[in-house]
Amino acid sequence: MKSRQIQLTAYPKGEPGPDHFNLVEVDLPKPGDGQVLVANRWLSVDPYMRGRMSGMRTYVDPFPLNGPMEGGAVGEVIESRSDQLKKGDWVQSMNGWRDAYVSDAKGLQKIDTSILPPQAYLGIAGLTGMTAYVGLKRIIGLKEGETVWVSAGAGAVGSASIQFAKAMGAKVVATAGGADKVNYCKSIGADGAVDYKATDNLAKSVREAAGGGVDAYFENVGGSHWTAALEVLKPKGRIAACGMIQRYNDASAQPIPDNLTNIVAKSLKIEGFIVIDHMDLLGEFIQDLSGWMMAGKVTGEETVREGLGEMPNAFLGLFKGENLGKMLVKL
Amino acid sequence: MKSRQIQLTAYPKGEPGPDHFNLVEVDLPKPGDGQVLVANRWLSVDPYMRGRMSGMRTYVDPFPLNGPMEGGAVGEVIESRSDQLKKGDWVQSMNGWRDAYVSDAKGLQKIDTSILPPQAYLGIAGLTGMTAYVGLKRIIGLKEGETVWVSAGAGAVGSASIQFAKAMGAKVVATAGGADKVNYCKSIGADGAVDYKATDNLAKSVREAAGGGVDAYFENVGGSHWTAALEVLKPKGRIAACGMIQRYNDASAQPIPDNLTNIVAKSLKIEGFIVIDHMDLLGEFIQDLSGWMMAGKVTGEETVREGLGEMPNAFLGLFKGENLGKMLVKL
Repeated sequence: MKSRQIQLTAYPKGEPGPDHFNLVEVDLPKPGDGQVLVANRWLSVDPYMRGRMSGMRTYVDPFPLNGPMEGGAVGEVIESRSDQLKKGDWVQSMNGWRDAYVSDAKGLQKIDTSILPPQAYLGIAGLTGMTAYVGLKRIIGLKEGETVWVSAGAGAVGSASIQFAKAMGAKVVATAGGADKVNYCKSIGADGAVDYKATDNLAKSVREAAGGGVDAYFENVGGSHWTAALEVLKPKGRIAACGMIQRYNDASAQPIPDNLTNIVAKSLKIEGFIVIDHMDLLGEFIQDLSGWMMAGKVTGEETVREGLGEMPNAFLGLFKGENLGKMLVKL
Repeated sequence: MKSRQIQLTAYPKGEPGPDHFNLVEVDLPKPGDGQVLVANRWLSVDPYMRGRMSGMRTYVDPFPLNGPMEGGAVGEVIESRSDQLKKGDWVQSMNGWRDAYVSDAKGLQKIDTSILPPQAYLGIAGLTGMTAYVGLKRIIGLKEGETVWVSAGAGAVGSASIQFAKAMGAKVVATAGGADKVNYCKSIGADGAVDYKATDNLAKSVREAAGGGVDAYFENVGGSHWTAALEVLKPKGRIAACGMIQRYNDASAQPIPDNLTNIVAKSLKIEGFIVIDHMDLLGEFIQDLSGWMMAGKVTGEETVREGLGEMPNAFLGLFKGENLGKMLVKL
């Protein structure tokens, strides 16, 4: 059997162009014992992929030249020689940028498409959404009627957090940089939103937008936001500090909070977390999320292109602002 | 009936002396409905009392001149017209500096002298011990075999924390200022102790004393200790930040930690607390403590003087270092 895949022809310097990609037909082996043949139905393109096209090792290896690239994908099992997966099952994998593949079944994650559309697992039902859910549900322990401040509200985790917190019955104040992002936060449900670049007293602005102190703070930013959070949190307030480590590389250049004594004075609780440590919540998350999506409380906004050949354009479109929400390619 | 009490004759400037105190005999009324007559058996003297002798309002009113002073006391009910307390019951109160008093029963806390000696309730079984217990048990959630760093290890809360943590089966590293205090920490069970005044790299010294990183940090100090703690804590480490607010008055003059990103990088948990919010643990605390004391694992060290007339000397002795552990007067 044949499979088609997109390969990288050269490591681009500066902006990549269509010439750096090539659509190639390759032979697929027959599935062996314990293996399955999967036809991909949805492929993900993400900004982080640019890093793997640089030819230099960062925190993962670069993509190979003239070989298969990786990326998020969901597909359907069309042939199985495994006890764990049967024909018709849907699976999630990192075997993107191609229309089909053969793999050991144990390396694939089976997904439940009866409660969520399959492509949701590449966006709001993926690790991004799960990070927002873990932060609000387990780390903060958000309760109905409480007020939560979500920083970086227009970002991937932030925008999921705003919607989830509203679905949980909380009041949400978001912060983001710039008027467009502030408006976006409001459009997805934030009760109030503050442009942190347009205020010289972040704590005061958040307090005004919240109509008082906040019960919890979802930390995605660092620096001056910490100081403001320790200021604006009510007694027994909680901070969830999200494990987006790469954002913290230049933390030493940021302002340092000088009001840590508030941790004691107000009995605050601060907890850093990494989503991978909390995957036991996955089932509960998918259940809550599907309920919220069916009730129209949460929308995983998508921009969809069609056909494997559109992958390079979809990817390049990310850098031209062509997407609203998650950019996907449907096969 | 007559009662004898110590009264303050003048607000001392600088060091108080015996002349500032007067032993006076006063008339006690007969107990009315719902009231009890209590004979004090043990009285507490504490450094904080000096603040109430200044004549200026701090966080509580100053002691009156030529009137009854306050202080921790445990005594025995010798006459009762209350349903809540009967003759022979032991009670804890702030009606110290006197040998007997009449009070509404509802303002008194009954204590169980079958499991702990009554005077323990003025020391290790009082709020000081309870603070240590809440910090280790609930805030940190200390487990057997873990390593905990206790700061201010020679202080009231710190020395209780060292003993309780050892009784819980943990390894303990203490920090304190000066060789004498370091030796004291070791004498009550600390596996390692560091003189923070004698090191220019606190994190490194604690790590050496602990034989590696620590699982938890009991914060009583602030400033540079925070920075070192964020450095020396292992992944998933916990910090209990103890609500001794008065120590934090000059916090703005202390070094500010520049490594808060470790909270995220190591998934740390930090929680400030005030003991009064956790009094539901009191029963469990008294039970654990009595077991530990009977097993000889915890000793509430005491220095005992005898007779009401010794109260001024016992109090003045606090400032001359005449006590080891809790200073008490037995009546």
